[in-house]
Amino acid sequence: MDRATRHTKFRGRILGLSVYEGEIEGRRVTREIIEHPGAAAILAFDPDGMVIMVNQHRFPRGRVLEIPAGTLEEGESPRDCALRELTEETGYMAGSIKPLLSYYPSIGYNTEVIHCFVASDLKEAQSNPDEDEIISVERYTISNLLEMIRAGRIQDSKTICALLAYTAYQS
Amino acid sequence: MDRATRHTKFRGRILGLSVYEGEIEGRRVTREIIEHPGAAAILAFDPDGMVIMVNQHRFPRGRVLEIPAGTLEEGESPRDCALRELTEETGYMAGSIKPLLSYYPSIGYNTEVIHCFVASDLKEAQSNPDEDEIISVERYTISNLLEMIRAGRIQDSKTICALLAYTAYQS
Repeated sequence: MDRATRHTKFRGRILGLSVYEGEIEGRRVTREIIEHPGAAAILAFDPDGMVIMVNQHRFPRGRVLEIPAGTLEEGESPRDCALRELTEETGYMAGSIKPLLSYYPSIGYNTEVIHCFVASDLKEAQSNPDEDEIISVERYTISNLLEMIRAGRIQDSKTICALLAYTAYQS
Repeated sequence: MDRATRHTKFRGRILGLSVYEGEIEGRRVTREIIEHPGAAAILAFDPDGMVIMVNQHRFPRGRVLEIPAGTLEEGESPRDCALRELTEETGYMAGSIKPLLSYYPSIGYNTEVIHCFVASDLKEAQSNPDEDEIISVERYTISNLLEMIRAGRIQDSKTICALLAYTAYQS
């Protein structure tokens, strides 16, 4: 967008919201844009090949089953964020980690990118969830999780993208 | 969340943003929440089995390759929205449509649900993009699109979720 004017409407603890007015390819446009630092998520397999999931309270939906994930801290790499969130939320440290895919959850209006990783060689450490996170750890087979996606019982984008991409490209 | 207090911070053309303060399972929490009416997306196959894609300008990223999609209008069903957006953006009408999956792009802080459908029996009609949409229509094989996801050249959640779910469950 050339000659865009940015109007900042909100600046919070995690999210910002700005309205941009400008011109794209010769047309006047207005865009409401969420500004987000980005996030990392981790598909982690325990020594038995089970996937480590977190069952977490998400306002306003209630309890949701997800892969461990969290928001990037300032200056933090997606890889370090994924490893930190795995340990904080589940009490596991990963001996091996590799990138799986990165995606924009809402590409039309949100700057957030979610970086997904695959981890194995897990060792038990000490979990340390954020004070306002309400989390329990559960383990599932990958085929059970794929069936839950098909049945509409898992509806979280990072969990769907990571599990389906892993199944399509790496399993 | 019981006894939550809602502070509305922004109300725009598409997005709203509110901060909620309340209690979840006995703990004090604050949540910054994007309020969005929801969206529908459509994985549409032409008579040759090619996938109909739109190449669209997305601020601030630039040109992005996506399946056709758009925001639900007031009182509109996800199915009707998907059919409307297909025609508006690509000039095709679908003779057959069925639900594929629905998901939350950012379940931690955004009420948006994206409803994905699969369509076939396409007939040519007249495209009619919104005035501020800058779009061109392109056709790809599904295997080409799956390779673009693997290579990180497609990074849009609805396109990834729809293509990988279709491949895993319906192809």
